[in-house]
Amino acid sequence: MEMNYVIDTFFAIFAMTLIIFMVPGFAMLEAGLVRTKNVTSVLTVNVMIYAIASMSFMLVGYEYAFGSWDHQTGISKYAYFLFQMAFVGKVVNIMSGGVSERSRILPLALFTVVVGAFLYPTIVNITWGANFLSGTAFDISDMSDLAGCTVIHSTGGWALLAAILIMGSRRGRYRKNGAIQVIPASNIPLVTLGAFLLWIGWFGFNGGSVGAISSKENADAVALTIMNTNTAGIAGAIIGWLMTYFRYKKFDITMMLNGALGGLVAVTAGPDQYDIYSPILIGAIGGALVVIFVPIFDKLKMDDPVGALSVHLVNGIWGTLAVAIFVPEVHMMDQIKGIVVVAAIVFPLSYAIIYIINKIFTLKASDDEQLEGIDAIECGIESYPEFKRSI
Amino acid sequence: MEMNYVIDTFFAIFAMTLIIFMVPGFAMLEAGLVRTKNVTSVLTVNVMIYAIASMSFMLVGYEYAFGSWDHQTGISKYAYFLFQMAFVGKVVNIMSGGVSERSRILPLALFTVVVGAFLYPTIVNITWGANFLSGTAFDISDMSDLAGCTVIHSTGGWALLAAILIMGSRRGRYRKNGAIQVIPASNIPLVTLGAFLLWIGWFGFNGGSVGAISSKENADAVALTIMNTNTAGIAGAIIGWLMTYFRYKKFDITMMLNGALGGLVAVTAGPDQYDIYSPILIGAIGGALVVIFVPIFDKLKMDDPVGALSVHLVNGIWGTLAVAIFVPEVHMMDQIKGIVVVAAIVFPLSYAIIYIINKIFTLKASDDEQLEGIDAIECGIESYPEFKRSI
Amino acid sequence: MEMNYVIDTFFAIFAMTLIIFMVPGFAMLEAGLVRTKNVTSVLTVNVMIYAIASMSFMLVGYEYAFGSWDHQTGISKYAYFLFQMAFVGKVVNIMSGGVSERSRILPLALFTVVVGAFLYPTIVNITWGANFLSGTAFDISDMSDLAGCTVIHSTGGWALLAAILIMGSRRGRYRKNGAIQVIPASNIPLVTLGAFLLWIGWFGFNGGSVGAISSKENADAVALTIMNTNTAGIAGAIIGWLMTYFRYKKFDITMMLNGALGGLVAVTAGPDQYDIYSPILIGAIGGALVVIFVPIFDKLKMDDPVGALSVHLVNGIWGTLAVAIFVPEVHMMDQIKGIVVVAAIVFPLSYAIIYIINKIFTLKASDDEQLEGIDAIECGIESYPEFKRSI
Repeated sequence: MEMNYVIDTFFAIFAMTLIIFMVPGFAMLEAGLVRTKNVTSVLTVNVMIYAIASMSFMLVGYEYAFGSWDHQTGISKYAYFLFQMAFVGKVVNIMSGGVSERSRILPLALFTVVVGAFLYPTIVNITWGANFLSGTAFDISDMSDLAGCTVIHSTGGWALLAAILIMGSRRGRYRKNGAIQVIPASNIPLVTLGAFLLWIGWFGFNGGSVGAISSKENADAVALTIMNTNTAGIAGAIIGWLMTYFRYKKFDITMMLNGALGGLVAVTAGPDQYDIYSPILIGAIGGALVVIFVPIFDKLKMDDPVGALSVHLVNGIWGTLAVAIFVPEVHMMDQIKGIVVVAAIVFPLSYAIIYIINKIFTLKASDDEQLEGIDAIECGIESYPEFKRSI
Repeated sequence: MEMNYVIDTFFAIFAMTLIIFMVPGFAMLEAGLVRTKNVTSVLTVNVMIYAIASMSFMLVGYEYAFGSWDHQTGISKYAYFLFQMAFVGKVVNIMSGGVSERSRILPLALFTVVVGAFLYPTIVNITWGANFLSGTAFDISDMSDLAGCTVIHSTGGWALLAAILIMGSRRGRYRKNGAIQVIPASNIPLVTLGAFLLWIGWFGFNGGSVGAISSKENADAVALTIMNTNTAGIAGAIIGWLMTYFRYKKFDITMMLNGALGGLVAVTAGPDQYDIYSPILIGAIGGALVVIFVPIFDKLKMDDPVGALSVHLVNGIWGTLAVAIFVPEVHMMDQIKGIVVVAAIVFPLSYAIIYIINKIFTLKASDDEQLEGIDAIECGIESYPEFKRSI
Repeated sequence: MEMNYVIDTFFAIFAMTLIIFMVPGFAMLEAGLVRTKNVTSVLTVNVMIYAIASMSFMLVGYEYAFGSWDHQTGISKYAYFLFQMAFVGKVVNIMSGGVSERSRILPLALFTVVVGAFLYPTIVNITWGANFLSGTAFDISDMSDLAGCTVIHSTGGWALLAAILIMGSRRGRYRKNGAIQVIPASNIPLVTLGAFLLWIGWFGFNGGSVGAISSKENADAVALTIMNTNTAGIAGAIIGWLMTYFRYKKFDITMMLNGALGGLVAVTAGPDQYDIYSPILIGAIGGALVVIFVPIFDKLKMDDPVGALSVHLVNGIWGTLAVAIFVPEVHMMDQIKGIVVVAAIVFPLSYAIIYIINKIFTLKASDDEQLEGIDAIECGIESYPEFKRSI
């Protein structure tokens, strides 16, 4: 009994540590994808999010989500908190990444407080937590979502959708004649490094969400979960690679990596329940959805510099539906209901909060500020001050 | 009994996770060592290798290597697969790194399929696996090779040797007058980061290869293995540092890091069997071999931008021999036989496969394409598009 | 009994692995903070320190510190060594980082040998180790210092103070008219990456210092320790952010990250003994001390390019005092005595050693050499040779 407590606590710490690698993971991915004039501010935002979202969650959100600090007894309550805390910043990361290169930092920090203390804990409350909707018609606790396909990825995605609708696109991104200005990523090694740190973090994210490893059954479930997570990432990368290759005869590493991330999101709702081959299909569809939806969002003039809508929102939905398709015991209606209820809470709330923040504190940088770069306006620190720039 | 299963499964997952850090490790190392005009393609190749080699191994190679998915029972079969899968890409990484800056991506992808599905599993089959050579004169299962000094590093090295012989050198590398054009590494921080991610990955590679940690004896063996692995890396770094310093009065960090990697390869065949001082000598010789062989291969006009032949092939051989020198119970003939049989399988097969691939799909980029850079030809994505280049 | 041995050995290996991520962590942080002309040498020094300090500690320092290789029996002696070895380079890292951009490499290597073999082991001996001061008036083994607030951070800080006093500032840093020349960090993504690798390493540093995880009590202590460590880092980041924002109306990511590191140092003496809220205050004060002391040291013309005096020395002292403030059972006099005795040993010894090394081998690069850059003088390798520089 004590040994189970010890091993499961150790395992939660291990899993949490992997997830924390996603903090530099998101930071490097986004810093590589934006232009050099916005790199410092993107990094600042990533550090800020981790600090503020975690602190808000510790001081307010965690008890609201789970009802108390002592709601479970299988592992150390501190390890349980750490594991849950590692998730919270991700929701804001998804949103902040998608509005890069045009958002100001202080208003983002305010939104981060709201997400960490209130918005994300609300969703956790009704899914994995105390569940104030229990017994009502809106109870979605039957949704099968192991590691947050809807709870985290869609939540972040809906918040991002609201933010993009309110803020609009980056200066010069969509021309009057309908042309789309391509804005190239400034640092491909950072993009690659970031994507792999996210990938490794996903092992902790999904594997740790099994909740325990200290029985043979749980050990198998954890190992299967991590294997399936990895398989979906691989399948997404291959599909992202093939689809762009057959279309453009070029190898687009950003689409390979976003395809991998799409596959990783897609598998996140049920990796412990799939056989080892289903994640190939689930991840491949996830990768394909990224390749398909990135230009669709561009056509809709929804400007998303890192492809977060396609990776997290589209695949958050697809991945949640996939459990019902591939696992007979899971009902499609439970999954759809979960997706809809979360959307119905997160989207309007995010929209209202971001709208108010934008009105009072001006979330969006002006065209002139964007031209100069958010780094100069907000940080006063250049990312690479010694390198001569050609753009 | 169940606790052993749990702990050893957890440990295999831990070890596998460290090995996956070698994916960004190799990617950053190689991206730092090549010129900026080839960085995106090198990164693309690294992502592609991880995805394709792993998928090929999962779908075909793993069962061929081990006979079945259920060949062992001490840990979760999914964790066992993950740990083995983490190795397979390394073999292609060794080869692809050494032909950087002149290889095209699609033919490399085809070779990756062959290695992941067939070539590497063949070598695993006859050493750690089902062993179709059992009972024949070519049975090499008595070779002592804990974590793949021959099985992985030499295998990758022989494939690289074949590739270099077929493809020849980079444009302008060897002048007609016999002079060697020095091509400087483009990003030293990435080289350093990559080398340390590899170093840390090696703890999982070698430590995890002990196979279990759940008895006092195994726990000691794992800890000894990791300590000896680290010691050999340190010794290799120091020797690489001293040898270049005494020769050129400069501190060459690439030689320090390649010396460390040489030491790490050299210790890989027997770190669980050495006392704690032997790895100093084994690693120091490993580092010295790198410093000695890098210019030798250059004299032979075998162009290897990352020093992979010296690090992996030369030290793969040295490290496998070293077990027989430092461990009385291990016979030199078993080690030599293992090295020779693996060479006799991998080199001609790789040569034939790469030859055919090169004939049909043109593995090597033309001089004009190399001049423009592989990134422009194959990827259409610059690695650092905003930085003005002086070269 | 055997299971405790196994799990605690595994946990020590896990913790040690996290700490090794601090090697690239320090390397990236410092490489990002210095100018490009000194990046290669900073990286070379970091690799050198890890190799030489670890080797010196293994061959000489470890037995001196602990009396024997077999002084404990709860975990594998190899794992115990690895965990302790992971600490030693940090002491020199703290010192070398603070004298970046003006120190030559070979003299630093000599100092590293002395620290790894003798200076750091002396401090470990009288605190966590064999304790040759036991029974004397200078016995400080009653100081409460879980993971090296004084033993590591102050020790490195005192050595750095001695080095700065002897070497003086970088060329052109302090003008004759009293103005301070701002020297901007060259690569902000690397600074961010490095800081987070350090942050994650701290989980292993502090968590592993609990020494065992294999009982319910220990598992709770480890989880609490890691949670408190993280909380202090977060609090330090937030304070660093707010203080610079209210002063300059800009978001200074280097101050946020150094604030986080200050908070992490500050909590290191007693994270297993604090409740979960005290680290907010301890870390916030830690972050504030960094913001306050960085300009103070500059006023004193103590040139410290990475802020190591404020992060490690000031917070090493503050953090050691904090245990007595927040934990009733810990006596302030024991903490003060520990701080003073360590200072009285480390500062004069470091001063004498560095003074002698500087006299004989010229530790400080001349103004002309600094103008050209340490990379050209010492390494002959540019960090980013292809990027045109504007400075």
